[in-house]
Amino acid sequence: MLLCDIGNSFYHFFKDSESFKVSVDKTPEIFNEKIYYISVNEKAILKLKNNINNLIDLSEFINFKTDYKGLGVDRVFACLDIYNGVVVDAGSAITIDVMKNSTHLGGVILLGLSSHKRNYNSISEKLNFDLNREVNLNQLPQNTENALSFATLKSTILTIKDIAGENKLYFTGGDGEFLSKFFENSIYDRNLIFNAMIRVIKENKL
Amino acid sequence: MLLCDIGNSFYHFFKDSESFKVSVDKTPEIFNEKIYYISVNEKAILKLKNNINNLIDLSEFINFKTDYKGLGVDRVFACLDIYNGVVVDAGSAITIDVMKNSTHLGGVILLGLSSHKRNYNSISEKLNFDLNREVNLNQLPQNTENALSFATLKSTILTIKDIAGENKLYFTGGDGEFLSKFFENSIYDRNLIFNAMIRVIKENKL
Repeated sequence: MLLCDIGNSFYHFFKDSESFKVSVDKTPEIFNEKIYYISVNEKAILKLKNNINNLIDLSEFINFKTDYKGLGVDRVFACLDIYNGVVVDAGSAITIDVMKNSTHLGGVILLGLSSHKRNYNSISEKLNFDLNREVNLNQLPQNTENALSFATLKSTILTIKDIAGENKLYFTGGDGEFLSKFFENSIYDRNLIFNAMIRVIKENKL
Repeated sequence: MLLCDIGNSFYHFFKDSESFKVSVDKTPEIFNEKIYYISVNEKAILKLKNNINNLIDLSEFINFKTDYKGLGVDRVFACLDIYNGVVVDAGSAITIDVMKNSTHLGGVILLGLSSHKRNYNSISEKLNFDLNREVNLNQLPQNTENALSFATLKSTILTIKDIAGENKLYFTGGDGEFLSKFFENSIYDRNLIFNAMIRVIKENKL
């Protein structure tokens, strides 16, 4: 069974419990098997359709309760199997979505950790830095690298904390494991979206 | 008396209680009078030096206690006359600096409000939005514009609150007046930097 979660930057594939990603700037190789996919990227899905015949869009098989207009299907699948809790998908953007009794109550989109760096650079060449993930968040920074790293992490963590309150947190995405360590009542599940896709495939006998 | 605070994007001039700004991409007109300046922008100060003879660098006349390496002279002047308190200069970046007994204890550099917008756009064309400054910060967003506006404002406000604690806040900069409204123990002083520059000029009889 071959799965694909198509995002803004990558085709995220999943097969035999292993995931691998391909830049959306590249044309993915031709697979001979059926691909079950979800996609937030119109251009990337067109490119896949030009190369592969047997594609199944899993978004057609779900029922998800939300009043949010324009919720990305990747966020829907990350939340799909969470009864109560807060889902944080930390990639180039960091989405935070709140689920209560299997209903989506709303969500927020923060800049991703790596996106901060790029943005600081564009403000001033003096604000060129690598994120110091070990920066002490209990001490006022004394140089530019730490001032930027502190701001990046603190603003992200405080916003997640504010939205989550006492609710359990489910982290996924490239920076999910790192960020989950700042929260006691949290788990990290690298395959949160793929696991929901597998469940939908099985339930619908696709 | 003509003052100039040279930043990453603009020459900020001040004369007769009025301020005006000129893009650093333009060559400022030739003034016949003395200009008292501070600058964080090497290229822009060189351009000014090519056109104007009578320039006085006010950073040479101050004594500022800090252990911070590479503190921008605009941040120094914004803090210079604050005995106890937290100084927030909200422009293309948002600097937050803590002063205690006229000593600088450290500081943080957040992305500016307008910088968030540019950065979201670069992640995905779907994340194209104008900051909704009226977004309800007590209600989970139900669409992309509010999800991005909420994240931008909430992450900024929470970080400032976390650093400031119970200390008095002094806001300046283009978004300073707007942000100051979210804090009870705060004042907004559009001319925080220029007023410190004037005090240095007078004390040193320049």
